[in-house]
Amino acid sequence: MRYLEDFTAGQKFGGPERVRVDAARIKSFAAEFDPHAFHLDDAAARASIFRGLAASGWHTAAMTMRLLVASELQPAGGIVGAGFDEFRWPTPVRPGDELRVESEVLEVRLSKSRPDIGIIKLRTTTLNQNGEAVQVTVGNLVVPKRN
Amino acid sequence: MRYLEDFTAGQKFGGPERVRVDAARIKSFAAEFDPHAFHLDDAAARASIFRGLAASGWHTAAMTMRLLVASELQPAGGIVGAGFDEFRWPTPVRPGDELRVESEVLEVRLSKSRPDIGIIKLRTTTLNQNGEAVQVTVGNLVVPKRN
Repeated sequence: MRYLEDFTAGQKFGGPERVRVDAARIKSFAAEFDPHAFHLDDAAARASIFRGLAASGWHTAAMTMRLLVASELQPAGGIVGAGFDEFRWPTPVRPGDELRVESEVLEVRLSKSRPDIGIIKLRTTTLNQNGEAVQVTVGNLVVPKRN
Repeated sequence: MRYLEDFTAGQKFGGPERVRVDAARIKSFAAEFDPHAFHLDDAAARASIFRGLAASGWHTAAMTMRLLVASELQPAGGIVGAGFDEFRWPTPVRPGDELRVESEVLEVRLSKSRPDIGIIKLRTTTLNQNGEAVQVTVGNLVVPKRN
């Protein structure tokens, strides 16, 4: 487990964990949370801007969180997000994709209001089996200080 | 259904739709996507930074998407996100919360590369039953032109 003192700008974290994307889960996630034809129906998806079935961005974000939790990042106190400066999905996520995650610390700073915590700014990239970025975020995480 | 020409800065969209947040769904969502004690276990959550069980931010984002799809926004071609300029969760989402969504168009612009689409910049605020913002995003949506 890593405390604020253990993080420095430039550190990179990955991990062996992979998530395989399942067509049925793409559709069931979308039916509950993001009911659009391009996430629910193969034929409608082919005729849409996505040119084929694509996972909801929120499904991708949720799968990315699972990968990040399992990665080498391991901040003490868990992964507590204080918001994002950047968030985008450059490439659609397709059935059968195998996703992994890489993250890089961009900045480490103390909290102005609380002496026991700090904030790390982290770029997190979710990649498919072809090395294409399917999600890129720059987020701020709350991390406790060791002392 | 609204095309790019139907959107102007300052327009606000809401809707009657509400989502009631269920403790069991908070835990099952977290078990699949965001396995942290503060999303999974009541006692551990009370001892955490959240001071009680809180929904995963990705669960909140997914519930917000459901509300936005059901809202008066209704862009032609569906809600297609081209990324966010801002994304934060100011207040934890708790079991029993009743969420609703409000959105405001901040900017409408044509695509530089594609004559058939444009981008609207939208601030979306997810509110609980006390009127507290639980999620605030500023995102860019791809919207087709009518002609």
